[in-house]
Amino acid sequence: MRQTKAPNYQSPIGIFDSGVGGLTVAKKIFHILPQEDVIYFGDTARYPYGPRSKESVKVFSVQNMNFLLSQKVKCVVVACNTASALALYDLEKNYSIPMIGVVKPGAWRAAQATRNGKIGVIGTLGTISSGAYEKAIHEIDPKKEIYSVACPLFVALAEEGYINKKATYLIAQEYLAPLIKKKVDTLVLGCTHYPLLKRVISKIMGKEVRLIDSAEETAMEVKKVLSQKGLLKRRSLKTFRRFYVSDVPDRFVEVGKRFLSEGSRSVPPKSGTGRFAGKDKITEVERIDIEKY
Amino acid sequence: MRQTKAPNYQSPIGIFDSGVGGLTVAKKIFHILPQEDVIYFGDTARYPYGPRSKESVKVFSVQNMNFLLSQKVKCVVVACNTASALALYDLEKNYSIPMIGVVKPGAWRAAQATRNGKIGVIGTLGTISSGAYEKAIHEIDPKKEIYSVACPLFVALAEEGYINKKATYLIAQEYLAPLIKKKVDTLVLGCTHYPLLKRVISKIMGKEVRLIDSAEETAMEVKKVLSQKGLLKRRSLKTFRRFYVSDVPDRFVEVGKRFLSEGSRSVPPKSGTGRFAGKDKITEVERIDIEKY
Repeated sequence: MRQTKAPNYQSPIGIFDSGVGGLTVAKKIFHILPQEDVIYFGDTARYPYGPRSKESVKVFSVQNMNFLLSQKVKCVVVACNTASALALYDLEKNYSIPMIGVVKPGAWRAAQATRNGKIGVIGTLGTISSGAYEKAIHEIDPKKEIYSVACPLFVALAEEGYINKKATYLIAQEYLAPLIKKKVDTLVLGCTHYPLLKRVISKIMGKEVRLIDSAEETAMEVKKVLSQKGLLKRRSLKTFRRFYVSDVPDRFVEVGKRFLSEGSRSVPPKSGTGRFAGKDKITEVERIDIEKY
Repeated sequence: MRQTKAPNYQSPIGIFDSGVGGLTVAKKIFHILPQEDVIYFGDTARYPYGPRSKESVKVFSVQNMNFLLSQKVKCVVVACNTASALALYDLEKNYSIPMIGVVKPGAWRAAQATRNGKIGVIGTLGTISSGAYEKAIHEIDPKKEIYSVACPLFVALAEEGYINKKATYLIAQEYLAPLIKKKVDTLVLGCTHYPLLKRVISKIMGKEVRLIDSAEETAMEVKKVLSQKGLLKRRSLKTFRRFYVSDVPDRFVEVGKRFLSEGSRSVPPKSGTGRFAGKDKITEVERIDIEKY
């Protein structure tokens, strides 16, 4: 049987996230690495990770890792900013498989983008209090000035589709006021949910402020890492994208549509319960018991 | 050792909730049954229950029950509306211990309070889609007209202290518009978080609309059940109130303060990390691994 074989270049890419947010990262991976098979796990029974402690996020991340390893993935993308910020450092010490988080790619891009050296970072409570973005940016250039603000309501607003509402504008205005005062010219959207609120955020920050979304940079990093390690899949006609969640699939499918269509010109076609409209394919969503891993 | 003894009238009351919200119920129990010992469990590693599936809420509720039973409680109060709506029916079939949820007491009070027979119910996605309040009210009086609306953003707004903000007002206005149109004269706050938003909700609904908060009615029901079963504790000088959570205590203590002070004239005194200011006592908060139960 091939099941016991170690992962190789033909093996799928593993992605985990606290829920649907990581689909913004998955989507960029689909585009940049269309020949790759992908296994996505969204921890929908325990999302959001944003307000949880470091200890809990670490325990959950280890279980998510173990599930993906049971699926014989060749690398793991930690698509959740909170998990990347709080758990990736420990995961990297304990697993030998290549791992790519979203914090470092986002930090790198922000450091390149700023002209006045003032970078704003917004994220969940967990991400902001970890200081992970500051650390990552200062490793690239210790002279950069970094100003961070937690925006805990943004996740709920994005999930509920409160994208173009006045209430969202008022809340964002309050969160972002200190960053405008500091005259940042670059703003890291340090949570996979925030790209959905780009329009509101940009309206408040002003057109001259560059918004950094880690998704594309992360997908480029995945390609680079796989290439360096000789793990890129050869072009093939047949690819699969499998989605696993820890709660029932319905809500993942429903809310996920908004995240998969983010940044697209067209919204993906509507599909039935438990099915996902990918680029031009439908993929099944399956529920697993994550606490067993 | 007394540990193996079955629970009796001297045993503590068990309360579980998805997190901090159930403290509004716990507080009423402290007031109505001051001589009773109480063990409170808040599932802070997996809150909120509102957007989760029935299946997940049931699994979590069984674990919460098993933890409280391991603490030799004499009854269990399901202080979470979502768990009461989605899991209590099954729990009652599988456990012989007296159990009190928050839906039936709230439904009873609403049925008594309405004058025009039109009752509004607001709650989480899970509570509203379960139809539990409709069923409970119709069991009392099938002629009552019931109009239900899910208000998923209210939990996050209450937790983040967005109590008197314009954004909260705008969001509430949108959620409540259909209930105003239906001319309900009574509104069930079908989530333990919502009493924190009472002022905003009342402003929108109008003074003549009566807001029903299940907490007090539930505490009265606990007293009634314990009395009927001869399980009321005799008055004693020494009582304990123990708090357990599934994530680290810090945030529970911080956010919990708002919930314990809800409806009070004075805010409880500030206390250090991991400590809770009860009426005139400080109680420790301990973290447990709920997935083991």
